[in-house]
Amino acid sequence: MKITAYLSIGSTYTFLTALRLRDVIDREGITVEFRPFSVRAIMREMNNIPFPPEKEAKVRYMWRDIERRAAGYGLPSPKVPAPYPLQDFDRANHVGIIAEQQGWYIDYFEATYRAWFLDGLEAGSDANIHQVCQGLGRSFDDVTAAALTPEAEAGYRANTEAAKAAGVFGAPSFVVGDELFWGDDRLEDAIAFSRR
Amino acid sequence: MKITAYLSIGSTYTFLTALRLRDVIDREGITVEFRPFSVRAIMREMNNIPFPPEKEAKVRYMWRDIERRAAGYGLPSPKVPAPYPLQDFDRANHVGIIAEQQGWYIDYFEATYRAWFLDGLEAGSDANIHQVCQGLGRSFDDVTAAALTPEAEAGYRANTEAAKAAGVFGAPSFVVGDELFWGDDRLEDAIAFSRR
Repeated sequence: MKITAYLSIGSTYTFLTALRLRDVIDREGITVEFRPFSVRAIMREMNNIPFPPEKEAKVRYMWRDIERRAAGYGLPSPKVPAPYPLQDFDRANHVGIIAEQQGWYIDYFEATYRAWFLDGLEAGSDANIHQVCQGLGRSFDDVTAAALTPEAEAGYRANTEAAKAAGVFGAPSFVVGDELFWGDDRLEDAIAFSRR
Repeated sequence: MKITAYLSIGSTYTFLTALRLRDVIDREGITVEFRPFSVRAIMREMNNIPFPPEKEAKVRYMWRDIERRAAGYGLPSPKVPAPYPLQDFDRANHVGIIAEQQGWYIDYFEATYRAWFLDGLEAGSDANIHQVCQGLGRSFDDVTAAALTPEAEAGYRANTEAAKAAGVFGAPSFVVGDELFWGDDRLEDAIAFSRR
């Protein structure tokens, strides 16, 4: 069964997914549909404030956990804490919508997280998009212009509504039929379920 | 290296740990120290309210995820949602302190979660403790009397302080040297780390 991946650039743990998803797809021979959405819009509705000061221990833990799990997957070591939260969260994902429409989402997804977590260039920023477009042979001007069109926003909203309808409350999320799996650490559970 | 398990009866995901920890210890040949503590006291300080109404999607997900992961581990299927939150949270853990002092914590830990998640008897309740004591050949009267002593409360507080000092913010948590691992789904990471 197909896996629908609801992905939101700006989520921290998604670094792990961004850097391993292509290999996982190849190795497991699974079909994954990418739906870039706004986890921020959904979390706002849930009154979920990421990284509040009284949760400092939890935040410190999160960065260390990401670092350790990256090592466990054999991924390059991220520079943590990475710049957070994103100033241009929606822009990062609007570019994702365009990339998805043009068939290069997985490339953008991986490259933008590499630039963000390995090179310290915040996703959604000019510096990040420049570097990503250069690396992928895309035109910065064309991509950023397309990201500003109503079509990009419409696609983003539609995906966010679909995510909400599927019960998504965090990112990354993986939907298989009626089953929701939340978190990079549930990707393997989603794959196992997709084979049943 | 030794693994210190900070365990708090009342946590939902801990059902998975309670039902598999004994087997994991035997199979992996690891040394685990049990420290029953109050995750509730720590979460209160973090203003963390479990299960708020606006997070209904997340709560629904949690029960389903526990159910699926239980199946993945080959554990008996829990009756979800289990009674929650516990009315006698501290009592459930005070009994844990006594059991730990007397060397039968792992038995209590597993039995109380079985009674709670499989038979619907809330941990910390008379019905739960009765069934657990009967199954383990312990005296309900002796155990519940000991759980009311200042020594039980002192041990509970000391463990909660130690948990806080180790950066613990949720349960179950596993500490290996200076490294903290949070969640049943990080037990394997903790074990891998304990071998380095």
